[in-house]
Amino acid sequence: MRKIALMSSVAAVVALVATSASADDLMKAAKDVFEPISAKKVALKDNEMTKARRDLGAALFFEPRLSSSHLISCATCHNVAIGGVDGLETSVGHGWQKGPRNAPTVLNAVFNIAQFWDGRAENMAEQAKGPVQAGVEMNNTPDAVIETLTSIPEYVEMFKVAFPKDKNPVTFDNMAKAIEVFEAELITPNSKFDKFLAGDAKALNAQEREGLQLFMDKGCTTCHSGINVGGQGYFPFGLVEVPDSNIRPDGDKGRMAVTSTGDDAFVFRAAPLRNIALTAPYFHSGKVWNLKEAVKVMGTAQLGADLSEKEVDSIVAFLHTLTGEQPKVVIPTLPMSTNKTPKPVL
Amino acid sequence: MRKIALMSSVAAVVALVATSASADDLMKAAKDVFEPISAKKVALKDNEMTKARRDLGAALFFEPRLSSSHLISCATCHNVAIGGVDGLETSVGHGWQKGPRNAPTVLNAVFNIAQFWDGRAENMAEQAKGPVQAGVEMNNTPDAVIETLTSIPEYVEMFKVAFPKDKNPVTFDNMAKAIEVFEAELITPNSKFDKFLAGDAKALNAQEREGLQLFMDKGCTTCHSGINVGGQGYFPFGLVEVPDSNIRPDGDKGRMAVTSTGDDAFVFRAAPLRNIALTAPYFHSGKVWNLKEAVKVMGTAQLGADLSEKEVDSIVAFLHTLTGEQPKVVIPTLPMSTNKTPKPVL
Repeated sequence: MRKIALMSSVAAVVALVATSASADDLMKAAKDVFEPISAKKVALKDNEMTKARRDLGAALFFEPRLSSSHLISCATCHNVAIGGVDGLETSVGHGWQKGPRNAPTVLNAVFNIAQFWDGRAENMAEQAKGPVQAGVEMNNTPDAVIETLTSIPEYVEMFKVAFPKDKNPVTFDNMAKAIEVFEAELITPNSKFDKFLAGDAKALNAQEREGLQLFMDKGCTTCHSGINVGGQGYFPFGLVEVPDSNIRPDGDKGRMAVTSTGDDAFVFRAAPLRNIALTAPYFHSGKVWNLKEAVKVMGTAQLGADLSEKEVDSIVAFLHTLTGEQPKVVIPTLPMSTNKTPKPVL
Repeated sequence: MRKIALMSSVAAVVALVATSASADDLMKAAKDVFEPISAKKVALKDNEMTKARRDLGAALFFEPRLSSSHLISCATCHNVAIGGVDGLETSVGHGWQKGPRNAPTVLNAVFNIAQFWDGRAENMAEQAKGPVQAGVEMNNTPDAVIETLTSIPEYVEMFKVAFPKDKNPVTFDNMAKAIEVFEAELITPNSKFDKFLAGDAKALNAQEREGLQLFMDKGCTTCHSGINVGGQGYFPFGLVEVPDSNIRPDGDKGRMAVTSTGDDAFVFRAAPLRNIALTAPYFHSGKVWNLKEAVKVMGTAQLGADLSEKEVDSIVAFLHTLTGEQPKVVIPTLPMSTNKTPKPVL
């Protein structure tokens, strides 16, 4: 009896050593492929991250008067209460029109190679100009935006302070740059996965580690790697097998519309997977509501792999560890309209 | 030369004494009619203001899944970034439908005698149930709301902690009570006017004091008094002269629909005037965008008084002193949907 107990203890110790040895190996391998957010100092190209610019950007991010209806702001579709998205298949904008694609999260968007599902905006400032002008989104024009902002003395002053070198600081470009500075703040550090990458082997449990191992072994990391676990390059959706046309509608050719290159048909920016558990529904079509189903679709469409239920569950468990600390955003108090401010057009 | 200078000094001192004497008289008179927010301890009837209830209420206030579209929350029309309103003539809701009346501010709503323009909800909890169910607003049903909330374990737990004595805490009534606790926090103390009422004679300048004096002398305080400078009783709109039918449309009989009493035709709750400079457009129709014009309309319609330009300017200057410190609201992180959560219906 005593001998058996001893042997059993030895086995437990051996198992423990084996686990932590393999966790260490996994950690080492993962560090080659991914990067923790916590270690990253955010910097923007050609945009100074001053407090004045950030505060102006915060106001503009929540500013419904950037839309012609005065009802829709950046925050409408990029709701930081629910993972920086709107939780809809595709966004609903001006006149209750449905947009063409699922809204990507604003959280950690600063780490993406480019913005939008097809990468047509090289940074968040370029991105910010899109929805403001889209007829199905905010339905406004740069001229009307400038007329609105110029009509409000507090905004004119905020632009002056945020862009002190500019003779004429209230511009559509500067609006976008200010929004970019604010959005660069919307990052989600200290996820379980970040802690694991930072050296805490216990941050992931056995199933989560198995999921990570599978994620690397099965080839998910070909597209989903780096600091954002994706968002770093462009890949065809349906590499091995064409997904259901509900999930990948024939009418949306992805990056082909950007590059006018046939090779780019159905090519999209690989989705960044940080906070993916918070941002259903999935894919550019928003047609898949369940993360487990999304992983299965990826398995067949991209890897030609029929993942077992257990494998899918482990990968999903790993994906949940990508949920980071959500930013604490205080709603700014916006300056009020004047008699010169254009009225909402509904 | 010296004598003149001396006399001029004496005159200045006399003028100063006279001003502060009249400012003191005005302050004394104002204290009889109004009440500062800063001195008010907020309490709710039949609703405990616990932190758990407040935190649940904050989540629910920002919860778009209370609407059938998953797009509209309380915060959509009661935007704390712009004075607790939406800045539209009448609110836009489900399917881009326009609501029948201008959205009243949620700020300081706790101090009103009852809620809605016609006072049909006796408190903010009763109020909160209205828009959730209105077809032109959030277009949902209590059953669907409960199904949604029950499908999310974190919400079930939050309701349990917020309503510990209830066997079945996830109810439509408790949803409303939690929202009421959060909304009771949305008050705006320390306006210039509050400081004046608290004894700081210099908090209002000469024009603002003149405006306050006129506001009391001309009879505005008959309807607009108390802590909310209004919101305390019901009065006919068009007491002396019927306003333009654009401003007071014939189709909206106001409180008559609540009491079924002919005498209540065109009777409304007197608008609370705190933060009125932030909450254009004005009146239940939202047809007047300019505060100066709104004061003129009130002068002719309610007082039969043709106020001079100077008088109107002074009253408007006084009304601006009712803008208080806006609440600093941190956007809550909402618990995520599960596979059991009903999908949005657009």
